[in-house]
Amino acid sequence: MEEYQIKTKVVGVDISNDITTYAIVDIRGNILAKSSFHTTDFPDVNSFVTALSDNIVELVEANGGYETIRSIGVSSPSASSVSGCIENAANLPWKGIVPLAAMLRDRIGLAVGLSNDAHVSALGEYTFGCAHGMNNFIVLSIGVGLGSCFFSAGRDHEGHNGYAGEFGHTCVVNHGRKCGCGHEGCLEQYVAAAGIVTTAQELMAAGTPTLMRDLPKLTPRTIKKCCDQGDELAIEVYRRTGEMLGLGLANYASLVDPEAIILTGGISRAGKWLLEPAYQSFEEHVFGNLRGKVKMIVSQLTDSERDVLGASALAWSVPEYSLFK
Amino acid sequence: MEEYQIKTKVVGVDISNDITTYAIVDIRGNILAKSSFHTTDFPDVNSFVTALSDNIVELVEANGGYETIRSIGVSSPSASSVSGCIENAANLPWKGIVPLAAMLRDRIGLAVGLSNDAHVSALGEYTFGCAHGMNNFIVLSIGVGLGSCFFSAGRDHEGHNGYAGEFGHTCVVNHGRKCGCGHEGCLEQYVAAAGIVTTAQELMAAGTPTLMRDLPKLTPRTIKKCCDQGDELAIEVYRRTGEMLGLGLANYASLVDPEAIILTGGISRAGKWLLEPAYQSFEEHVFGNLRGKVKMIVSQLTDSERDVLGASALAWSVPEYSLFK
Amino acid sequence: MEEYQIKTKVVGVDISNDITTYAIVDIRGNILAKSSFHTTDFPDVNSFVTALSDNIVELVEANGGYETIRSIGVSSPSASSVSGCIENAANLPWKGIVPLAAMLRDRIGLAVGLSNDAHVSALGEYTFGCAHGMNNFIVLSIGVGLGSCFFSAGRDHEGHNGYAGEFGHTCVVNHGRKCGCGHEGCLEQYVAAAGIVTTAQELMAAGTPTLMRDLPKLTPRTIKKCCDQGDELAIEVYRRTGEMLGLGLANYASLVDPEAIILTGGISRAGKWLLEPAYQSFEEHVFGNLRGKVKMIVSQLTDSERDVLGASALAWSVPEYSLFK
Amino acid sequence: MEEYQIKTKVVGVDISNDITTYAIVDIRGNILAKSSFHTTDFPDVNSFVTALSDNIVELVEANGGYETIRSIGVSSPSASSVSGCIENAANLPWKGIVPLAAMLRDRIGLAVGLSNDAHVSALGEYTFGCAHGMNNFIVLSIGVGLGSCFFSAGRDHEGHNGYAGEFGHTCVVNHGRKCGCGHEGCLEQYVAAAGIVTTAQELMAAGTPTLMRDLPKLTPRTIKKCCDQGDELAIEVYRRTGEMLGLGLANYASLVDPEAIILTGGISRAGKWLLEPAYQSFEEHVFGNLRGKVKMIVSQLTDSERDVLGASALAWSVPEYSLFK
Repeated sequence: MEEYQIKTKVVGVDISNDITTYAIVDIRGNILAKSSFHTTDFPDVNSFVTALSDNIVELVEANGGYETIRSIGVSSPSASSVSGCIENAANLPWKGIVPLAAMLRDRIGLAVGLSNDAHVSALGEYTFGCAHGMNNFIVLSIGVGLGSCFFSAGRDHEGHNGYAGEFGHTCVVNHGRKCGCGHEGCLEQYVAAAGIVTTAQELMAAGTPTLMRDLPKLTPRTIKKCCDQGDELAIEVYRRTGEMLGLGLANYASLVDPEAIILTGGISRAGKWLLEPAYQSFEEHVFGNLRGKVKMIVSQLTDSERDVLGASALAWSVPEYSLFK
Repeated sequence: MEEYQIKTKVVGVDISNDITTYAIVDIRGNILAKSSFHTTDFPDVNSFVTALSDNIVELVEANGGYETIRSIGVSSPSASSVSGCIENAANLPWKGIVPLAAMLRDRIGLAVGLSNDAHVSALGEYTFGCAHGMNNFIVLSIGVGLGSCFFSAGRDHEGHNGYAGEFGHTCVVNHGRKCGCGHEGCLEQYVAAAGIVTTAQELMAAGTPTLMRDLPKLTPRTIKKCCDQGDELAIEVYRRTGEMLGLGLANYASLVDPEAIILTGGISRAGKWLLEPAYQSFEEHVFGNLRGKVKMIVSQLTDSERDVLGASALAWSVPEYSLFK
Repeated sequence: MEEYQIKTKVVGVDISNDITTYAIVDIRGNILAKSSFHTTDFPDVNSFVTALSDNIVELVEANGGYETIRSIGVSSPSASSVSGCIENAANLPWKGIVPLAAMLRDRIGLAVGLSNDAHVSALGEYTFGCAHGMNNFIVLSIGVGLGSCFFSAGRDHEGHNGYAGEFGHTCVVNHGRKCGCGHEGCLEQYVAAAGIVTTAQELMAAGTPTLMRDLPKLTPRTIKKCCDQGDELAIEVYRRTGEMLGLGLANYASLVDPEAIILTGGISRAGKWLLEPAYQSFEEHVFGNLRGKVKMIVSQLTDSERDVLGASALAWSVPEYSLFK
Repeated sequence: MEEYQIKTKVVGVDISNDITTYAIVDIRGNILAKSSFHTTDFPDVNSFVTALSDNIVELVEANGGYETIRSIGVSSPSASSVSGCIENAANLPWKGIVPLAAMLRDRIGLAVGLSNDAHVSALGEYTFGCAHGMNNFIVLSIGVGLGSCFFSAGRDHEGHNGYAGEFGHTCVVNHGRKCGCGHEGCLEQYVAAAGIVTTAQELMAAGTPTLMRDLPKLTPRTIKKCCDQGDELAIEVYRRTGEMLGLGLANYASLVDPEAIILTGGISRAGKWLLEPAYQSFEEHVFGNLRGKVKMIVSQLTDSERDVLGASALAWSVPEYSLFK
């Protein structure tokens, strides 16, 4: 009887527009080693895959060895778990359809799971975060963009093509603000970073006095600082943002009936200036039987931790595979 | 060895606001016997359950006998499959929380499954209709109200409380038309029956000549007849209705990524006057990667057939139970 | 809006060692057209696939046309639904690994699902037969061989490699009768056709008088006829067969805890001569808490109907695909 | 917006015949506090539930407080997750049907999940042990008794009544050794603790010289020590034990097709004396296509750790509930 060697670690990779983070994670979500490089250093996807593979092997060899790693999970914007490809990512350097899962598997000789960042975030919250023990919930990521994912009966709802959860591109204002996607009135244009700045600019146009005029740069973070100083117009910026977010979430919840909505991403750190008007607007608009029943929670994991952990959970979900067996 | 007698039939019940239909259905969806009575004849729910039970027993005794029936499935507005209750139904005679599944089971001595009409419709389409073989799809019911249900990975998405799919009460016009639910701008107020009539009245207010002025009664059906005669204002009524419907469905689809959207209910029979503008608006608003990919289909089952068949599928999904074993 | 044409029919194919049957089946399990040819006429698998494809197209063109067919389901001995291949089939003309699903799909241009006959039988019973409405059950096929499949929580248990359910090759007599598989004491050698004949020969060797000596050919069917005439030795043949079957099934049930065991295949028609001793032996050996709780049922579908219907259900479970889209 | 307080801990309880262990466990499987008492001190189940509840509350109050605990998971011999009861446990002090889940929930005011020890062990291995990332596997517990559980498609196979996995009471020798369950030839009588001693006694009866004659007490552990010293008869004891185990497992695997078989419990520590003959016998008897494909693994969790962790995973799987909401 040949002894079978159990593999107790996986690699979680989080590709974001600027930084690619990769970490060795054990079964219980302990991050054993972690490193990162600039995504933007690799405008060619082949050189990116080579670099990612080399970096992973180096990290792994310094931490127990290649043969202790079971598989790899990868989070990326615009990735489809159904096709295993990154598809037409707006802000990544690589255009068109990139079969990243297959490329990395062939290069590194281990099973690779790929899914988009919103789904991986949700998986991270489900496995190690606020959504642990929940079966139906929504995870929202509000930052530069607005992504989401919901779970149905304890499983990631992927949809027919793997595109489910495009909350940022639901229309909240018919013929509203122009969106980079080509449509008008997308929620993302009101509640993600650029949208908040636009709202501030629109409000400032009327000439009302505000601390925001003194800011070197108008950003969600600097606007929030004005709120903290009691600036009424800044507070109004977040109130309007929250109102839109609450309306969008109410529609989402009326369709999905979640136990909780979990907020992640930089904008979710805006605190009460965003959350209170958002919750109030949510309660005003959500289907009556759900009023007072949906928990709105700010994630307690950091963004980078969540995505690497979610990618590690994804890694465990793909069947084991090795070139050397 | 005692011979085990297989039960090959169930009873499907469809409670709607006016009529309650009940039928004996076999495994393959053949309706073997069917009857109905007026829901409104029983303002007291106890007498309703007694009547329903007596009627079912009578039908069953005339068609093979009680001992050939495995279980009962019931479709009702405002029913929750999670609680087994009809909860605060707006248009049924019985108010508050009605534990109908338990009441009927205790009365008739067979297992009873209960779910709301939108979910039962979806189950009917999945088992015997257009959605057979699909894993992710939306079923819409457009009539007096606007209900929906979606399937996730081959299963009815129920949500945390069993309320998922309240599409009619998603907000499409912030501070728009008043809805009976207490909110403003609910989609139902624009695309269900009363909403279509309201749109017609609004358009007619301007004084434009139209055949609609000659109608004895303004209803979705009579307005459609005007469309068929080439009446431009009537066509505009449906164009606006379709535009709203398409926008709402685009948002729904961007979140759920369905293979198909299946339209049921009286309004879905309006044909091209509704469907063409709805589809055009849907394509304009849906998340880009989904454009051209979602099938919009009018159901090929009649409304009464669908709900009785769906209820029969529900009956098969509950564990068998008998007082007499 | 381009009208979407719903496909309401599939093709179910049952490949058995001698005959290949193919039929057009609708959603509700109505067999609309059916034909067959000799599997053994095609010792080369390429010519088999060509013939099967041509025959299907011919049948389909005569019955509504190719464009009305959604997909194809195929049942075959030794097929794995995990790999889509027929693997080392003992009694089919084609040796080694045959990627039949891919071959047929490429030839005919429609999605093809493949699974082994035991699993397809179980799917047939689940969808249209005795197991409808059950979540945990075993389907047994007793004929030339002894196959099985069980459902876990409403789904076919496939196992890690798609080989689950090899009940015929569980060992019931350590160092017992030699089996074609190379092992000794396999249950199949005691309860499938050849095993029953062997038991008869062993019992006859002692010289006891019996009608079986006058039979032109000793087969399960002719032995049963002797039972029907009251021949004690023939009855003893089936008693011993039943005892073994009951022991094997008791072990199976103690592991799986099924609601029912459904018997299919030619030997299951032996009636009380087999079933009574089998059930008695089952009750003697099964885990105590299960005694009296497991239903033993002879299938009410004919063998050919069941497999074609099961293959049709399999066809609906594969994602739609068409060369011409 | 009222802030929602996330609960990040559960209590895992392992009731075994002698000791009851309870621990506070966080999401990641860290055991934060742990204690135990003698099950046998409470011959009355009401006083047991009171003691367990009081002890849990005391531990919890000393470690973050009652309001930080989400729910409780309980592992017990003879427990059914379907009924929530301990049913006719042979070796626990409480006879008949004990509705432990409901009793504990009513006493402590938190949601309680209950399942039998074999299933909880499997859940422990799946969540935090060797089976992490596997979908189809068997977990075996060999000690005083012989229990098992298998996973089907990533979920615990419970069976129709919650009794699945009674591997110890499958019959491996028709009319073999008498078992406490009333049957003959149960596998437990050959491979669990008492069976190994019986085998030793049978072998020693022939008079062959052996170190085992000098042992103060014949137990699996002392017999293993003789093996370690090279005693041939002791080695033969384990060889026969392994042969039986391998035969039983081969039958199990031929039905279930697992990726791995994971051995837990005291006897699994016997090392190569047991495992080598077990694996050899397994390979001899398992269905041909599975030969060389099933991993046989000794668990790397300690028995007490596994069951408390498994119970914590069970706790997360039940819906949250609180008397005080």
